[in-house]
Amino acid sequence: MSTDFDAFAGPWRERFNRGLTRFLPQPDAQRPQLAEAMAYSLANGGKRVRPMLVYSTGAALRYEPDQALDTVAVALECLHAYSLIHDDLPAMDDDDLRRGQPSCHIAFDEATAILAGDALQTLAFEVLARCDRLSAEQRVALIADLAQAAGAQGMVLGQAIDLGAVHQSPDIAQLERMHQHKTGALIRASVAMAARACGASTGEREALSDYAGAIGLAFQVQDDILDVIADTSTLGKPQGADNARDKPTYVSLLGLDGAQSKARELLTQALDSLSGFDDSATALRSLAHYIIERGH
Amino acid sequence: MSTDFDAFAGPWRERFNRGLTRFLPQPDAQRPQLAEAMAYSLANGGKRVRPMLVYSTGAALRYEPDQALDTVAVALECLHAYSLIHDDLPAMDDDDLRRGQPSCHIAFDEATAILAGDALQTLAFEVLARCDRLSAEQRVALIADLAQAAGAQGMVLGQAIDLGAVHQSPDIAQLERMHQHKTGALIRASVAMAARACGASTGEREALSDYAGAIGLAFQVQDDILDVIADTSTLGKPQGADNARDKPTYVSLLGLDGAQSKARELLTQALDSLSGFDDSATALRSLAHYIIERGH
Repeated sequence: MSTDFDAFAGPWRERFNRGLTRFLPQPDAQRPQLAEAMAYSLANGGKRVRPMLVYSTGAALRYEPDQALDTVAVALECLHAYSLIHDDLPAMDDDDLRRGQPSCHIAFDEATAILAGDALQTLAFEVLARCDRLSAEQRVALIADLAQAAGAQGMVLGQAIDLGAVHQSPDIAQLERMHQHKTGALIRASVAMAARACGASTGEREALSDYAGAIGLAFQVQDDILDVIADTSTLGKPQGADNARDKPTYVSLLGLDGAQSKARELLTQALDSLSGFDDSATALRSLAHYIIERGH
Repeated sequence: MSTDFDAFAGPWRERFNRGLTRFLPQPDAQRPQLAEAMAYSLANGGKRVRPMLVYSTGAALRYEPDQALDTVAVALECLHAYSLIHDDLPAMDDDDLRRGQPSCHIAFDEATAILAGDALQTLAFEVLARCDRLSAEQRVALIADLAQAAGAQGMVLGQAIDLGAVHQSPDIAQLERMHQHKTGALIRASVAMAARACGASTGEREALSDYAGAIGLAFQVQDDILDVIADTSTLGKPQGADNARDKPTYVSLLGLDGAQSKARELLTQALDSLSGFDDSATALRSLAHYIIERGH
């Protein structure tokens, strides 16, 4: 099934990767490392799930990829890249590897990594503010969407809750709440911001929001499953890394079977919320399959 | 002379401090530390130079303080507070004290400090995006101003250059370039963003921009002077901290006399650029005096 999604995603991913460099700062003559660390972290982009959600949502709404969608995709990926750089820091998750490559603070140094993350967050807001294919009203609404998803009531709160959860025993509701903030908020924002840029109707936005909520959680459940069953080369980080640090996971709370059945439930839920869309939503549907079935 | 400025600044500072809390997130029940660390760092606000520049610029343009100016001031102070938190981190300047109080990563922990800084940056953009006293066009322009001043071609680049400058021997032009990015960019943005919010004319904006450029540098020259002559209790950090780390300063490059004469030159330059303004610019003028004469 994941090949299915790649058939859609291939051209979008190429478009995205090609366009991305236009938005990056030139390396400074006195201190090139900053821009290099930003580019390094953005280049190590994996499947580009958030940008792919943007283009897939555009397709569902029969909106052709244009500079507006490109900009929304770049903003989300910059925000995501910043969060990964900071999450990997020694004071946070202390991960030396990210998708099989040295983390930013290993490839450069810790100070450069902190600053590269900081500047990538700034860049996310700047590209939205400067996108002249969107009206000023759309731009401020998109910036508010992104800020809400990213900040102290969204992604950053999720990471803070996650850090506090080591050696704690949260129940499933608390674990879910953490993930809904830590990774779910930006995944939901990817779909909601794309829908906003495309001028979706209220009904369309609600259906898409249900879809995004389900796949956001599914993504994390599947991550926890992969953390247990995949080997390091597939995962790009040491197997069982979360478990080794005594972090609660869906697998530790529900068991492997329970987690796998939860992932399937969420897939069904995601597909159900797209029932009002015709073939235009095929990419969103196969992306939902891909999220549950990746790494197998 | 600094009492003069306090006469203007007192009511504005009260207005600012009173209004600030409205913009802060509520502590989360599961993880209150994040919001607490944000509030802690914002509360330890010193003289509020950037907000005071906003209200003083408003006064020069005969614009009464309102929600638009408050929001610009809050955005700048959030951005500034985030930069101080991250600059103080062990991997960066490794300062345990900030204005005489424990730095954020000492009062809380390093991970919380990184996240509080991250969330304060997000908040800076969010408050601008949501300010309904400004048109959408003004808001996107202000967000672009702030992003440009803060990011990989502004403040963050300045900090990166500064980190690379330890044990280096930059000339005065390189030192100046570093400061123009590291602290100057946000000081210039404070004046420029206030001017934009108040609808200043092109001529007014140019004069104000000259003023801001001069006081931005003066501020740093005076910091270097204070670092040599003031004692720890006045400065809130160990005396000679920069010198101890073998960082180049205006004093190390120009000598104490040379640095003091440069500060006076910059003051004259700042005052000259305000020659087209009448008494409305008294606050800006006394702020320029205050910057050069503080700590004496």
